[in-house]
Amino acid sequence: MYHQTLEEKVLRDPIHEYIHVDLQLIWDLINSREVQRLRRIHQLGVSMMVYHTAEHSRFSHSLGVYEITRRMIDEVSGLKDQLTDFEQVALLCAALLHDVGHGPFSHAFENVSHVHHELLSIQLITQPSHIHSILMEADPRLPEAIAKILSHRYEKPLLSQIISGPIDADRMDYLLRDAYFTGTSYGQFDIERILRTLRIEGERLVVKESGVHAIEDYIMARYHMYWQVYYHPVSRSTEVMISSLFQRMKDCIEQGIETFDSAPFIQAFLSTQKISNDTIMNLDEVSFLSLLMTLQTHHDKILSDLSSRVLHRRLFGYVDFKSNKQKEKLIDNIKKAGYDPHYYFDEDKATQAPYRPYKEDQQSQIWILTQQGLKELSTVSVIVAAIVKGKEKEDIKLYAPKECL
Amino acid sequence: MYHQTLEEKVLRDPIHEYIHVDLQLIWDLINSREVQRLRRIHQLGVSMMVYHTAEHSRFSHSLGVYEITRRMIDEVSGLKDQLTDFEQVALLCAALLHDVGHGPFSHAFENVSHVHHELLSIQLITQPSHIHSILMEADPRLPEAIAKILSHRYEKPLLSQIISGPIDADRMDYLLRDAYFTGTSYGQFDIERILRTLRIEGERLVVKESGVHAIEDYIMARYHMYWQVYYHPVSRSTEVMISSLFQRMKDCIEQGIETFDSAPFIQAFLSTQKISNDTIMNLDEVSFLSLLMTLQTHHDKILSDLSSRVLHRRLFGYVDFKSNKQKEKLIDNIKKAGYDPHYYFDEDKATQAPYRPYKEDQQSQIWILTQQGLKELSTVSVIVAAIVKGKEKEDIKLYAPKECL
Amino acid sequence: MYHQTLEEKVLRDPIHEYIHVDLQLIWDLINSREVQRLRRIHQLGVSMMVYHTAEHSRFSHSLGVYEITRRMIDEVSGLKDQLTDFEQVALLCAALLHDVGHGPFSHAFENVSHVHHELLSIQLITQPSHIHSILMEADPRLPEAIAKILSHRYEKPLLSQIISGPIDADRMDYLLRDAYFTGTSYGQFDIERILRTLRIEGERLVVKESGVHAIEDYIMARYHMYWQVYYHPVSRSTEVMISSLFQRMKDCIEQGIETFDSAPFIQAFLSTQKISNDTIMNLDEVSFLSLLMTLQTHHDKILSDLSSRVLHRRLFGYVDFKSNKQKEKLIDNIKKAGYDPHYYFDEDKATQAPYRPYKEDQQSQIWILTQQGLKELSTVSVIVAAIVKGKEKEDIKLYAPKECL
Amino acid sequence: MYHQTLEEKVLRDPIHEYIHVDLQLIWDLINSREVQRLRRIHQLGVSMMVYHTAEHSRFSHSLGVYEITRRMIDEVSGLKDQLTDFEQVALLCAALLHDVGHGPFSHAFENVSHVHHELLSIQLITQPSHIHSILMEADPRLPEAIAKILSHRYEKPLLSQIISGPIDADRMDYLLRDAYFTGTSYGQFDIERILRTLRIEGERLVVKESGVHAIEDYIMARYHMYWQVYYHPVSRSTEVMISSLFQRMKDCIEQGIETFDSAPFIQAFLSTQKISNDTIMNLDEVSFLSLLMTLQTHHDKILSDLSSRVLHRRLFGYVDFKSNKQKEKLIDNIKKAGYDPHYYFDEDKATQAPYRPYKEDQQSQIWILTQQGLKELSTVSVIVAAIVKGKEKEDIKLYAPKECL
Repeated sequence: MYHQTLEEKVLRDPIHEYIHVDLQLIWDLINSREVQRLRRIHQLGVSMMVYHTAEHSRFSHSLGVYEITRRMIDEVSGLKDQLTDFEQVALLCAALLHDVGHGPFSHAFENVSHVHHELLSIQLITQPSHIHSILMEADPRLPEAIAKILSHRYEKPLLSQIISGPIDADRMDYLLRDAYFTGTSYGQFDIERILRTLRIEGERLVVKESGVHAIEDYIMARYHMYWQVYYHPVSRSTEVMISSLFQRMKDCIEQGIETFDSAPFIQAFLSTQKISNDTIMNLDEVSFLSLLMTLQTHHDKILSDLSSRVLHRRLFGYVDFKSNKQKEKLIDNIKKAGYDPHYYFDEDKATQAPYRPYKEDQQSQIWILTQQGLKELSTVSVIVAAIVKGKEKEDIKLYAPKECL
Repeated sequence: MYHQTLEEKVLRDPIHEYIHVDLQLIWDLINSREVQRLRRIHQLGVSMMVYHTAEHSRFSHSLGVYEITRRMIDEVSGLKDQLTDFEQVALLCAALLHDVGHGPFSHAFENVSHVHHELLSIQLITQPSHIHSILMEADPRLPEAIAKILSHRYEKPLLSQIISGPIDADRMDYLLRDAYFTGTSYGQFDIERILRTLRIEGERLVVKESGVHAIEDYIMARYHMYWQVYYHPVSRSTEVMISSLFQRMKDCIEQGIETFDSAPFIQAFLSTQKISNDTIMNLDEVSFLSLLMTLQTHHDKILSDLSSRVLHRRLFGYVDFKSNKQKEKLIDNIKKAGYDPHYYFDEDKATQAPYRPYKEDQQSQIWILTQQGLKELSTVSVIVAAIVKGKEKEDIKLYAPKECL
Repeated sequence: MYHQTLEEKVLRDPIHEYIHVDLQLIWDLINSREVQRLRRIHQLGVSMMVYHTAEHSRFSHSLGVYEITRRMIDEVSGLKDQLTDFEQVALLCAALLHDVGHGPFSHAFENVSHVHHELLSIQLITQPSHIHSILMEADPRLPEAIAKILSHRYEKPLLSQIISGPIDADRMDYLLRDAYFTGTSYGQFDIERILRTLRIEGERLVVKESGVHAIEDYIMARYHMYWQVYYHPVSRSTEVMISSLFQRMKDCIEQGIETFDSAPFIQAFLSTQKISNDTIMNLDEVSFLSLLMTLQTHHDKILSDLSSRVLHRRLFGYVDFKSNKQKEKLIDNIKKAGYDPHYYFDEDKATQAPYRPYKEDQQSQIWILTQQGLKELSTVSVIVAAIVKGKEKEDIKLYAPKECL
Repeated sequence: MYHQTLEEKVLRDPIHEYIHVDLQLIWDLINSREVQRLRRIHQLGVSMMVYHTAEHSRFSHSLGVYEITRRMIDEVSGLKDQLTDFEQVALLCAALLHDVGHGPFSHAFENVSHVHHELLSIQLITQPSHIHSILMEADPRLPEAIAKILSHRYEKPLLSQIISGPIDADRMDYLLRDAYFTGTSYGQFDIERILRTLRIEGERLVVKESGVHAIEDYIMARYHMYWQVYYHPVSRSTEVMISSLFQRMKDCIEQGIETFDSAPFIQAFLSTQKISNDTIMNLDEVSFLSLLMTLQTHHDKILSDLSSRVLHRRLFGYVDFKSNKQKEKLIDNIKKAGYDPHYYFDEDKATQAPYRPYKEDQQSQIWILTQQGLKELSTVSVIVAAIVKGKEKEDIKLYAPKECL
């Protein structure tokens, strides 16, 4: 049974002091092959190229999201009462497994393959796999319930919000964790105060008015982490190059240049084949980088050059986009230098608003519990109001081999 | 001579790791009676009532401002070249002495007495005192130069900006220090990065474009510290009460009720007398709280009641201001309860904008050094632009004895 | 009733994140005159002369000891079951009030007056006072129970051990707190792990074997804090001078030179008079430093000189003790310089062993719960065993005015 | 030329705030293929199995050792004067490259292969490779000088001591770094104070007496990290298993069962072949784990079972060694369960003294500069003296599949 308990196990964690586990089911999931595989995928694959200590994995992030969720169930006033025992367990599993389908350099991958990691997570949970069998044995209703929570289809939206909403366990963990491991102070915010001021109103997770400053801080943390870390131009350069490499692989398959027999996961991801759970299990940074190593000597010059560049950090350079004329001139240079712009050029636009409570996107609204009832955050915080009305920051860069810039 | 050096002395400091002193003159000033007196004045006199660990003194803050200034001279690219040896020393002294005229609960005091601590600082520096004689012995030009730096009259405005400008040593130290000692995370920002990206352009301290995010963070830190700490309603309650008490003392003197012979500093501050340097030296929290203790049994009921309330933390309560009618009703209640609203009521308005680069107030503008030349911060940072255009936050509260609310 | 609860109140604290208060009784005690008075007594009165940021008060330490005790009751496996509801409350009160009788510079004071702060704490609790009446109203059995806990006379020794034993809330708070506020890293140890590995065996607080490393670290933290902070020679110099000043005051009273009418607390402390609770209330650093200020101009040259030295930090110098001959020569110099060695000389011996589990002093033994049963710490830890067998560190210094050394 | 400077580059680092690079040569080495390869080798390969966030690489550690060395050259009083410009550069290179020959899970590897990473580092530096050519271009004397520094054969022993001595840049970085990334507090010590109190005496790096407490703390940090992290029984279990796996690979080669043609690095390491620089370049965790993945389905049952166990964290269990009889019984159980004890059993002894200044091992002695001249640490520190005289801690464990214990 899923509520079979153990002597509580604790894992030391720099973000949360300890990760507490007292359900056998959670312990078994942590030790499953699919979750252990996340040790072999960096949380910030491309940011490592800039922040050399950002070497943490999706495994430790998954433990962190689980731990915040566990604390929310225990500590957020009124939450436990809204959840059945079953739902509490399903929610904890969903937290731990929310990223289980992630592959290496997912964003670059998904640019080319159009298979999204969210779908793979759900597939690993609901179709035969190690975690699937662990879940089935604990309670056969679990896989379906977890899948619904993760895809925002569970009957009580609250459960999905806790994992993925405007103030969720996922984001709170990754901001704190990425800040710690990059060694920047930007991602800091007062999670203790946020947890203390969260409340349940109707079916919604809201924040008491006394928590508004902590929320403002959290929004700014998010904003800074995006611009200082996630959108760092050198990270984006790495991502652009990996996308090009995937594109070239895909084109090679389509043009019959290469079949990648030794890397079946690539075939599956770059074609329209159904991807099996076994294939997902074989996809991690080890297998991907290992493929890159062999590609360095491939007869296809683009494959070998791009692989070698990524492995040895000879990254594309970049300039700010100024005009289409400038762009055309750059593409010209690229061609003159003997490169194919299809793979050796990219225009990359980064844009991020700290907080956007669009009418049409209720899911991103943060609600504040005031003495006069619930109010949307930007009506309570003058700083957020200012930001909402302000212009979105955007940054367009052109990427190409350095000698062409 | 002022550049006589010592074997470098270091003082452990949680904010800056160490305070480094290698000039005999600075060491002598630190040990002067006027600077040691700052040990007896809390940096955040009224905030201690809310944040119980905010017990740090103006003494440690003064050392911190000195240390940041010392680092700026050493580390800000191009700064040293703009300063003569004499100016470097004068600047260090100005940093250490910038708050030397502060008294206990200065803001409450200054509401009533209209003597400002800035003027007292200058008086202590330029007229006979212990620090005056230390300075004169080192170089007779020092007192005047320091006074000019502190009052923004020095011929090179850069020197004044370093102590007191939009990004200055004073503010950088107090934000970090107050955050550390209150135990909040709000005041954190990346001072290392700011120091690395400061530059001198013309006669101005400016920030390289790569430092914009650190500056945004610093502005938000300031904003949060104001609302979370400095404007905390309970702190303001304490300030309101101390102001009332000063007002009552002043009125008692004017009405011949009391002369405060045993506390000559009070007489001086609350009358139009010239305040001597000796009087300033006798003014600290020890002498002030000691006076309060004796006042607890004073025959004047208002003096005794307010003193006792402050000492034993029986503070006024507060409500948000809603209407003049509400306010009148409250004043009525106060009267009915037998209190004189002149002393037992206050309307306190707090207002603070994170950053206001008004045209007319060039001193508060932060300038960014971009590839296209100098630009004012809000034209470079979309987040600051948003804030500048937004509404100022303001908060009006009414204070009175709790039973009247 | 004492278990009347409030909406939980929390106080931000840098050591424990938050101090949690959910009993009205505790809240009332915190706001009592006697506990608020502790705001006016520095935790490390003399260390401030060396570590300028060590400006925290006994008030915040008292809150910290309360908080650790509260956590121990909640978190130490098996502890709650050993305590009645009444005992839990009494224990929390004892934690909060354990230092309530402390005066300014207690150690220097107690060298001369032989009134110990522990006795004054008990007097304030058991005889009419503000806290006494708060306690009586909550439960008339409380004052006696708390007094017994604090004086190790309570029938279950466990309660006393929690406040004052080899691993107690008092020491854990002050090591962490003093480290934080001095800005040193020496006092750090892993309190989370210690709390997790504490167990109750029989009537004793013991540590699970898996906590031995955390305990070793705690013992080293203690050792380092003693030598780096508490026994710093400049701190000891301040203490020596304050002792001399007290001695001179006492002698002046006895010789009829001065009666200190304006400082009745001094009369009481330095004579054989019974000290009333009112007298204790008037004794704090404010009243003491205020007395020192007036003494600066006293006609007794020793009183005025020593007061002025302490206030303006003109401290005695020191040399290591080498021989009696050296000592005699120094005393001679002191006399020749016109000083009375009775007040201007001291031989101060500091000695501290990290851990001394003497047979005769069972209270200082730390017991470890191993698979083979309870074992005394030094039989389990080779590092502690080594230390126990080693020589005690001692340090003898001679103090005198600098010009005599 | 090697002293060609760049605009200083900085890399954010949580341990040292920033890594500062101002030599083109160092920048080129950081970006070399051999140093970038260290990104693919975890600093604490087996500890990750216990401390899930210990996912940092030898790459970031190498940067850290470089940075401490850089600071030592700049900040240790008198050091710069002892070094020629050439030696300063050679020392910085040696710091950065000291671990460049490390492979994955080196300790387990070296148990079986008897090729040591120190030799491989020297081979990569002195024989044709990417770093070799970078060094040669800067100054042809560099490879030899660096090799001598790393192997303690350089004419001035001081240079070697800085990288690898009793208080060296290597250890200082790894203790702080491993503590940060495991999230434990054990490895903390005051590196600022150590750097401030280091001095050069004769040709030796020594510590001023005022640094003794910081050194005591450093020694305890080392001790605790060994027992809490490096010798954690679960880490050792992983190491034991990887050793067994290497052993099995070696035996398979010798017995002609498998040739590992697809993993040429394994052939080289496990035979007596000369290992080429290209082979080293192909050896990292990616290639090793990738090999393990393919071995999971190998027809040799031991290879496939051990590979699968390591990848999916089905680790051996352990018991404390008590007697030879117990051990024989365990081996019997292992055989009965159908396992070959040659691969499924190990007796592992961990032993570590915090500090051992053996007469015969002068290199591990720490010297303190006192007013009475140089003294060996244990004659100055009573706590170290106690530890030196104490018994060494040792811990012998028996490892086997859990069901056999």
